[in-house]
Amino acid sequence: MSTITREQLSRQLHWRYATNQFDPQRKISPEDWAALEESLVLTPSSFGLQPWKFVVVNTPALREKLVAASYRQRQVADASHLVVFAIKKNFSEADVAAYIKSISDVRGIPVAGYHDVMVGSLFKTRDAAARAAWAGHQIYIALGNFLTSAAMLGVDACPMEGIQPAKYDDILGLDALGLSSVVVATAGYRAATDKYAALKKVRFAKADVIVTL
Amino acid sequence: MSTITREQLSRQLHWRYATNQFDPQRKISPEDWAALEESLVLTPSSFGLQPWKFVVVNTPALREKLVAASYRQRQVADASHLVVFAIKKNFSEADVAAYIKSISDVRGIPVAGYHDVMVGSLFKTRDAAARAAWAGHQIYIALGNFLTSAAMLGVDACPMEGIQPAKYDDILGLDALGLSSVVVATAGYRAATDKYAALKKVRFAKADVIVTL
Repeated sequence: MSTITREQLSRQLHWRYATNQFDPQRKISPEDWAALEESLVLTPSSFGLQPWKFVVVNTPALREKLVAASYRQRQVADASHLVVFAIKKNFSEADVAAYIKSISDVRGIPVAGYHDVMVGSLFKTRDAAARAAWAGHQIYIALGNFLTSAAMLGVDACPMEGIQPAKYDDILGLDALGLSSVVVATAGYRAATDKYAALKKVRFAKADVIVTL
Repeated sequence: MSTITREQLSRQLHWRYATNQFDPQRKISPEDWAALEESLVLTPSSFGLQPWKFVVVNTPALREKLVAASYRQRQVADASHLVVFAIKKNFSEADVAAYIKSISDVRGIPVAGYHDVMVGSLFKTRDAAARAAWAGHQIYIALGNFLTSAAMLGVDACPMEGIQPAKYDDILGLDALGLSSVVVATAGYRAATDKYAALKKVRFAKADVIVTL
């Protein structure tokens, strides 16, 4: 069995926090980073369509430029890793076709009917703006999965909506890749000086958040 | 240490799938369910504002009614548990104030400046529709966290966007609670007859999904 105990889950979810200062000297090992990339790849999505790419920015000069597009938040440059969660800008029927091909490659079975269900849902009843909103929702599943996966491995992370997506797209050349940045996460290890690490976690009480009917 | 190994993470993320048929006889233990509710409560959100509630529907008659509002997907009635991920409908400055109070209750420190930052971001530059979109993004972080947490514990789950949110709100009386349903997840244990359990997982290759710059 590779399941974990309730206590492990609880402890790691309590351990994580939105890391404010990363130790710039501590890097995530290539093995751990590969596991986190795999967790991104395995994220579930609507119909399984994966309307996204995950842009991992390693080049220091790019990371420094992105600080200016992130309201000067230093995590963007100091953290071991930076992932930009980006959606496919003009999600099209060709993307559905690529996915259908991927299903039949992997499973070796025909899936013709599924194509029509997806096209019906995404192209007959939604316009481009509604499709972008749909893709925007999916990418937050990936963010949630990434943050939890990182916590399980003992890797610190910080989700960041406080970025200027258009500037990110420009600095990283995402337009040319057919992508739009939505949200980012930094990952690495907390600095000893990060005062947020010691603060008690603030959440509404379970009784205020869970409604049982 | 309560961290887990890369192999555990990878195996559990591969093990999970969107469960199509649940075993109606197998219930999640109260202890495991409490751990999953805790994972929902601990989900990170923008500014920590938690613009949500998680509606756990246990009443069989309600679950049956919801099947009709879910394009007849039986998971909604058959799974051990059903969670409706709902956002606060009219997220207001009073919600920000409640959160500020919660911070100062937990941490015992004044946080006056933070109030203005949040109000500036959410009420000065966004209208009600943009705030609902913002809350809608956050709730998908909770969905991603929930699915991964369930997988870690060996609990099956199925995220479901194929619901009629307005009918859900009506059946569950969510309007009166100031909530709007967005997406649901069923959780429990796969039925031995679920043919989807044995299918190979379909994901685009890492090289097609991860862009390294």
